[in-house]
Amino acid sequence: MKGKKLALGVSLMALLAFPVSQAAAQEAPKLTEDEWKAAKRIYFDRCAGCHGTLRKGATGPTLLPKRTKELGTEALEVFISEGTAGGMPAFVSGGMLSAQEANLMARFIQNDPVAPPEISLADINETWKVIVPVDKRPSKPEHSRNWQNFFGVVLRDAGKVVIYDGDTKENLGELPTGFAVHILRSSASGRYFYSIGRDGKATMIDLWSKTPTMVAEVKTCSEARSIETSKFHGYEDKLAIVGCYWPPHFVVIDGQTLEPKKIVSTRGYTYDTNEYHPEPRVAAIVPSHYSPEWVLNIKETGFIWLVDYSNLRDMKIKMIEAERFLHDGGWDAKKRYFMPAANMKDTMVVIDTKTGKFVTKFKTGTKPHPGRGANWNDPKYGPVSGTVHLGEGRLAVWGSDPENKNKEFAKNAWKVVRSIELKKGSGSLFMKTHPKSKNLWLDFTLNPEPSSHRSLCVMDITKPEEEAKCFDVADHGRVVHMEYNKNGDEVWVAVWDKAGEIVVFDDKTLKEKTRFKNLVTPTGHFNVYNTMKDVY
Amino acid sequence: MKGKKLALGVSLMALLAFPVSQAAAQEAPKLTEDEWKAAKRIYFDRCAGCHGTLRKGATGPTLLPKRTKELGTEALEVFISEGTAGGMPAFVSGGMLSAQEANLMARFIQNDPVAPPEISLADINETWKVIVPVDKRPSKPEHSRNWQNFFGVVLRDAGKVVIYDGDTKENLGELPTGFAVHILRSSASGRYFYSIGRDGKATMIDLWSKTPTMVAEVKTCSEARSIETSKFHGYEDKLAIVGCYWPPHFVVIDGQTLEPKKIVSTRGYTYDTNEYHPEPRVAAIVPSHYSPEWVLNIKETGFIWLVDYSNLRDMKIKMIEAERFLHDGGWDAKKRYFMPAANMKDTMVVIDTKTGKFVTKFKTGTKPHPGRGANWNDPKYGPVSGTVHLGEGRLAVWGSDPENKNKEFAKNAWKVVRSIELKKGSGSLFMKTHPKSKNLWLDFTLNPEPSSHRSLCVMDITKPEEEAKCFDVADHGRVVHMEYNKNGDEVWVAVWDKAGEIVVFDDKTLKEKTRFKNLVTPTGHFNVYNTMKDVY
Repeated sequence: MKGKKLALGVSLMALLAFPVSQAAAQEAPKLTEDEWKAAKRIYFDRCAGCHGTLRKGATGPTLLPKRTKELGTEALEVFISEGTAGGMPAFVSGGMLSAQEANLMARFIQNDPVAPPEISLADINETWKVIVPVDKRPSKPEHSRNWQNFFGVVLRDAGKVVIYDGDTKENLGELPTGFAVHILRSSASGRYFYSIGRDGKATMIDLWSKTPTMVAEVKTCSEARSIETSKFHGYEDKLAIVGCYWPPHFVVIDGQTLEPKKIVSTRGYTYDTNEYHPEPRVAAIVPSHYSPEWVLNIKETGFIWLVDYSNLRDMKIKMIEAERFLHDGGWDAKKRYFMPAANMKDTMVVIDTKTGKFVTKFKTGTKPHPGRGANWNDPKYGPVSGTVHLGEGRLAVWGSDPENKNKEFAKNAWKVVRSIELKKGSGSLFMKTHPKSKNLWLDFTLNPEPSSHRSLCVMDITKPEEEAKCFDVADHGRVVHMEYNKNGDEVWVAVWDKAGEIVVFDDKTLKEKTRFKNLVTPTGHFNVYNTMKDVY
Repeated sequence: MKGKKLALGVSLMALLAFPVSQAAAQEAPKLTEDEWKAAKRIYFDRCAGCHGTLRKGATGPTLLPKRTKELGTEALEVFISEGTAGGMPAFVSGGMLSAQEANLMARFIQNDPVAPPEISLADINETWKVIVPVDKRPSKPEHSRNWQNFFGVVLRDAGKVVIYDGDTKENLGELPTGFAVHILRSSASGRYFYSIGRDGKATMIDLWSKTPTMVAEVKTCSEARSIETSKFHGYEDKLAIVGCYWPPHFVVIDGQTLEPKKIVSTRGYTYDTNEYHPEPRVAAIVPSHYSPEWVLNIKETGFIWLVDYSNLRDMKIKMIEAERFLHDGGWDAKKRYFMPAANMKDTMVVIDTKTGKFVTKFKTGTKPHPGRGANWNDPKYGPVSGTVHLGEGRLAVWGSDPENKNKEFAKNAWKVVRSIELKKGSGSLFMKTHPKSKNLWLDFTLNPEPSSHRSLCVMDITKPEEEAKCFDVADHGRVVHMEYNKNGDEVWVAVWDKAGEIVVFDDKTLKEKTRFKNLVTPTGHFNVYNTMKDVY
């Protein structure tokens, strides 16, 4: 197991299945204080997402000393440097880490993981700032722009969100949202954008003020990925929720001020083996349209929680046994069925938010990653939804309307009706269409080949037998995330790079309309109307 | 703070509020391996109940090294030996520990607490035994006894439960239930008794077989206090639930076989300060009569959980913010309102299981300890409930029928209408009456004076202004727990001692009817009919 020439096709998972020898009893490599500090930062930024803060594994395998000491520094360095076929990125070859950093991380993960501190409501309160009080905000837009067609663009490494006018393509201002914003979500009215950083900081942007203005912020955790708002009738713009990675909990915050109101722990037992897990992280959250509920993916335990926000004092939570490890997902076209991916099980799960019950789960391909998914009408199979995959170049399409009047269409519900090989290969993160469009856009962001990760494919959903049209978007970076404008006739795409870009395409002609350059690592961009209405 | 002459009136809590000096940085006293083993056993048996397995405190203060090292071995020894006015028992003077053991425990608690291991469903499955399969059990009673008037008597330190025929007073057999059974509960039909030991072992006794027979057992945790059954229409004898102290979780088990079916963690945030607590223990559980729900007191976080058992797969839990630290409690006469004690806040809480909502909370006196409580009709105030107290000699009585047709009576709901000083003093654990009785029985089990803890008082509830009649039950041990027979004309009382007794009184004349002697530490005794119907 020596040298840097380990076959990259061998997955880390396979190696970790080796029996533990005497080596495990060895001392872990020592790190200096400065090295600890640097390694903890890199681990948080690059590793924790897949392997967990406590290194018990999720999308990636466990990285506990028992196994990592057995593998040893050299082998670990190879994995970190060169990645694996199982989905581990090549951090050194890919230019994300230096060789020294790979060595540091190889030594770091042979030491026992240390749990970051717990966080109480008092801690959160200390970080809470109302920058513009509610009574100082406008009661109607202070501008005549078509604000429902604004776009919020995340500049991940710049710690900023830029707001663009989708009609005029003007930059309306950059907001200092803090480190590594993961996503933006809209309030039910669309007036507010809420950002969540990977560092757990939530911010709130008012789109009605003269120029977009940050009106409040709060840090609800030390690591987070999701934020959502209360969209049920009667609760519009009233509440928001942050789903945290560490501590493993969610926090309900006021929708107008971000005042923290309630923390609920997600620690508990796995749904299947019923083992205690100290770190069940909150992945995607969606807002129910059937009841005052949020739908939370609890990644490590494999539960989907329906959190009733109508009574925070006597809070009701329904815990639905689903699958591990839950990640992302979205609604069917009627927003009744929530369909999250359990990527490590190659599975999509379906729950019915009208009845609050588990419906089914089915396999689609290696590591499905639907993002929020996509819904359209297939000429042969009727209303369908789909997912792309991290682990293979495949678009899976299934029926998603069990109540359809056409019984043939209804029968297709939760059956994979098409499984289309994508010639650009694996590594897809997102797919997107729009009710007014006949295009389905697909990215290949994590594919190792530049010819794939710099390109997009577009499929004509009215002619699903035809091959998708693929084209390069840029000669640098990685293409990621597609978002329609309000009218559904324009698609915005990001080129994720230190000198990144947003490229705007005409949805009909697939011609480039405009390109914003020199943006620092754009990684996601959200149209107000489509985000507030959950259009996809 | 030297010597054994510390004023016993000073509470440990007050001392623990002292600022921490340099002493806290000192090393903790060392223990040999044998001492560790002995101390852990004593801590589990004598200390964990009030101070918590992780020593974060509950009914007793926290015992973490930061504070205990400051106090030092000598001062701690005094507290352990002599007790405090705040409710800490005098373990050496009271004959429960030797002086050497007190010294050992004083040293032990200056060391860091160690969390006992987690327990998974697989671990629990390994302990599960069906002794008599369901199809080998009788379909009707194999005897002609009045089995609904059987009594199950816990012989705590003997690791046994004895079943008595309440009509004939015959001993029908001793069942080896294991160490330190805490309580018995009946299935909805009354046919089965379920025991739970402090060591987390649940057993199931069939009262229909020729002689009472243990038909199944399972160990769901390493420490527990509560067990309950599914009593809602349609779920009779179907399910049971064990509330655990460690790990902090509850386990749903099959009501016929004790097969473990589901574990749910109770770890989470305190209801008030919203701080994470690693050990929120499940105290009393009652079965709702309004819906397929169990009502759980989560002690350390101060929540009351309504656990819906109608769908274990997609389980619904309502988490009601109540008060800390929740301990015991019971129903009002109509079994709609659950009234648990938050003893450290001197408070009774009321929740409405019909609406699933918090109703109110109110102060009654120092450390209320109602057991399951008692309900009767007060001549002046109408339907009332009451509690005795650990911390003072007081019976608090409040209205408990807000829907009463008599509006004056309804208005008394959740108001303390009588606060009666009890001349025998503090240390009461239980009170009991019966719908057919005009007596209210009161014990003083934890009172330091033998003249109190060996006696009982009986109040005439039709003449609440009259002084209660008090009398000695035994010249040894401590009198604890009263239970009526099915007809409500006889009261069974335990004398808790190594050579203990059960004494049966005629409820009308208060005359002794019979006495069972030489029972090893009887600590609780349960009538089948009254337990299955929640009569109190």
